[in-house]
Amino acid sequence: MRIGIYPGSFDPVTFGHIDIIRRASKLVDLLIIGVLTNSSKTPLFTTEERIEFLKITTKDISNVQIEGYMGLLVNYANEKKAEVIFRGLRAVTDFEYELQLAQTNHILNPKVDTVFLTTSVEYAYLSSSTVKEIARYGGNIEKFVPAPIALAINDKYQELRRI
Amino acid sequence: MRIGIYPGSFDPVTFGHIDIIRRASKLVDLLIIGVLTNSSKTPLFTTEERIEFLKITTKDISNVQIEGYMGLLVNYANEKKAEVIFRGLRAVTDFEYELQLAQTNHILNPKVDTVFLTTSVEYAYLSSSTVKEIARYGGNIEKFVPAPIALAINDKYQELRRI
Amino acid sequence: MRIGIYPGSFDPVTFGHIDIIRRASKLVDLLIIGVLTNSSKTPLFTTEERIEFLKITTKDISNVQIEGYMGLLVNYANEKKAEVIFRGLRAVTDFEYELQLAQTNHILNPKVDTVFLTTSVEYAYLSSSTVKEIARYGGNIEKFVPAPIALAINDKYQELRRI
Amino acid sequence: MRIGIYPGSFDPVTFGHIDIIRRASKLVDLLIIGVLTNSSKTPLFTTEERIEFLKITTKDISNVQIEGYMGLLVNYANEKKAEVIFRGLRAVTDFEYELQLAQTNHILNPKVDTVFLTTSVEYAYLSSSTVKEIARYGGNIEKFVPAPIALAINDKYQELRRI
Amino acid sequence: MRIGIYPGSFDPVTFGHIDIIRRASKLVDLLIIGVLTNSSKTPLFTTEERIEFLKITTKDISNVQIEGYMGLLVNYANEKKAEVIFRGLRAVTDFEYELQLAQTNHILNPKVDTVFLTTSVEYAYLSSSTVKEIARYGGNIEKFVPAPIALAINDKYQELRRI
Amino acid sequence: MRIGIYPGSFDPVTFGHIDIIRRASKLVDLLIIGVLTNSSKTPLFTTEERIEFLKITTKDISNVQIEGYMGLLVNYANEKKAEVIFRGLRAVTDFEYELQLAQTNHILNPKVDTVFLTTSVEYAYLSSSTVKEIARYGGNIEKFVPAPIALAINDKYQELRRI
Repeated sequence: MRIGIYPGSFDPVTFGHIDIIRRASKLVDLLIIGVLTNSSKTPLFTTEERIEFLKITTKDISNVQIEGYMGLLVNYANEKKAEVIFRGLRAVTDFEYELQLAQTNHILNPKVDTVFLTTSVEYAYLSSSTVKEIARYGGNIEKFVPAPIALAINDKYQELRRI
Repeated sequence: MRIGIYPGSFDPVTFGHIDIIRRASKLVDLLIIGVLTNSSKTPLFTTEERIEFLKITTKDISNVQIEGYMGLLVNYANEKKAEVIFRGLRAVTDFEYELQLAQTNHILNPKVDTVFLTTSVEYAYLSSSTVKEIARYGGNIEKFVPAPIALAINDKYQELRRI
Repeated sequence: MRIGIYPGSFDPVTFGHIDIIRRASKLVDLLIIGVLTNSSKTPLFTTEERIEFLKITTKDISNVQIEGYMGLLVNYANEKKAEVIFRGLRAVTDFEYELQLAQTNHILNPKVDTVFLTTSVEYAYLSSSTVKEIARYGGNIEKFVPAPIALAINDKYQELRRI
Repeated sequence: MRIGIYPGSFDPVTFGHIDIIRRASKLVDLLIIGVLTNSSKTPLFTTEERIEFLKITTKDISNVQIEGYMGLLVNYANEKKAEVIFRGLRAVTDFEYELQLAQTNHILNPKVDTVFLTTSVEYAYLSSSTVKEIARYGGNIEKFVPAPIALAINDKYQELRRI
Repeated sequence: MRIGIYPGSFDPVTFGHIDIIRRASKLVDLLIIGVLTNSSKTPLFTTEERIEFLKITTKDISNVQIEGYMGLLVNYANEKKAEVIFRGLRAVTDFEYELQLAQTNHILNPKVDTVFLTTSVEYAYLSSSTVKEIARYGGNIEKFVPAPIALAINDKYQELRRI
Repeated sequence: MRIGIYPGSFDPVTFGHIDIIRRASKLVDLLIIGVLTNSSKTPLFTTEERIEFLKITTKDISNVQIEGYMGLLVNYANEKKAEVIFRGLRAVTDFEYELQLAQTNHILNPKVDTVFLTTSVEYAYLSSSTVKEIARYGGNIEKFVPAPIALAINDKYQELRRI
């Protein structure tokens, strides 16, 4: 059985991520979506909320498993017996950072390989942080994230404004 | 059965290509190496020679099949029932061209996806044309291509000098 | 009256060019589309054919004027009393070349400024040469150029195959 | 009447910004310079100070109007009935970020278009943050910003050192 | 006597830095390694520790002198009578930032020139921050930094975990 | 004695090249300018003419020696006992190609190192081919090359038009 990991912050999941998940899920028998719990960054949504959003939006894909992870990606891949790590590439700036990461990970664990998918044209310039920036100022984000996620983001910012 | 295609000119195959072949062959059940016969470019080696070099250097990989192809890559992928096209990424200039190609191919045939592997650190700046440039001026190319290929390249240039 | 020039080879015009023309035409009172007649390159279509294709596809835009030009762009802009040159930007490789050109032109003629529009997301990776490459091998190009242009390109390649 | 917006932090205005303002002002009937009041960043100068610096340095350009703004740029553009947003491009890193922003803004509000001017050669590598970094360590910044601004920056840092 | 400066944070020194030091030391009579003490950033190691690590790892190079510095690099270079500043280049993102810095420094002090060395292939994607990220999660960093430095980094993180 | 090589086509020498020569000549005891005689490209000026232009424009720099060379740069450097190769960097596209070349040359001959100088701001977007393109169409090139070279280029194109 071929196992792949698609790691990320998914804070929150966008149409760009869903596009990569859908395509990566066809290339392996099991796709584990690893939601990074990074102690040094403060996400908008908790790991539990981010996992829940991913579950809602990928429920029609049968071979996907969603969970949180901490620590080094290569160790996590090892533990999960994954052979391949999937990453989405949008732009040149992404590319350099990802190249560095892939090559470092390859040195740390040569058994796991990193494979890149390029984001589909219509989501090529979409990022979670852009979506949050727009929502924070009351802009319409329904073209960037699924409807239930859009609702949750807007609720979150209304709540934050109240504090 | 998951089928992948690794297309290219392979004029001639380098250690960089072999690295990609080895890694891509682990991600699919059958890896077809498609040697492009492009009527508008004049390669140093014939399609037959290039296929032969690939056969020699990949003979220890059991799930690899090598053949020439002409025309559009997406049509060739379709014909071979391949789900995935593999491409190696070395540098940013590569990346932009490859991104354009992948997105055009996705529009032409949404059933085939393009997946990128980044060349291992030690071959990151290696290309067939650099190897040929060095050989043409009598430089030592044994660090860039397998020994029998190095011999064939040097023979070819000696022959060309005689003409 | 504010006059702008949108120069290019337009060999042939694609949906990407049409997108730029439509948007640039709103920013000036008169938009001159300058079709480059470059003696050192062999285009697929003659200057007359390329002008005709542009006329067909922009006939609903009232303030557009289409003509051929030769020689230096800054001289042409001067002669036409244009204040602004429009260029489309797709990718980073484009950007560097265009930046060099814009800065050289600014030194040659400080009265004319170059303004860049970024190609809309869905045409970001489209180029005339890609379209021709696909058509040459019998691929479907109707998603990249307007229907009458697609017909003309296919006719041209059939004709070339007959020779 | 054609209205354009040139948005930015202008913390503080540099010769690079002034070059863009001068050129953009020729391409529209009214150029609104929108000084971003971003609650999440701590600027060196207040919005009022930054507006004042812009007024001093652009007082010879008749069709310029300077004001602060908050929230989403596309909403601000809408409110001001602006058809075009001007942005300066210096380097490739800029370009990718700006491309993403322009395409996101185009999806949020298709009526406003983003137009890029490339910074003149002599200011191509100048940024407000570089100027501040130099001033902070007592370096001479008179080649990067107009004299009264240089004075104000040096005063500000002397004041900060006293605290 | 030709004097060069190789400035940096060196927090901590990696095999990539050592490669640049070794090569730069051959191009000048005296190479001063300037360890930046930047008040606004919190390094993992103190200036004294970082200088000590550099001393241990370069003790076989006779013409190297290691010291801390504060303030503007061009002023420091001036004070040391250095004619040349050495910088390592890894990737395109590096390049743009470094180009901006070199050109700003050239305007501030035309007597000092900046010279770039490209990091050797095997260290091309190595950075101090990557090394720290790996060590923080207990990964093996012995392929990235000399053994005594690896020990010190691991000790530091164990200490931090205890707090 | 420290010997450096600055290789190139210099077809013809521009103010950008002269800037690099002036700065590189300060970093070594002898700077050899190697004018590439490449059999596969057709230059505008003969090797002799290109050497002559370089002699005229660098006659005030005492430690410069100008000569033609053929074949592999690393072999030429070896033969001349040069320790360092100088290259000018203008843009990102340059950078990637140069990085590849420098790393290939380092593998071929580890005794010679490549050092990069970034072209001064005012010549950052200048290239020999741009200068020739402008001159070919009768544009004024005196801002890009020294006066005697400008004259020679214009003469050459008048001669070519007569043929």
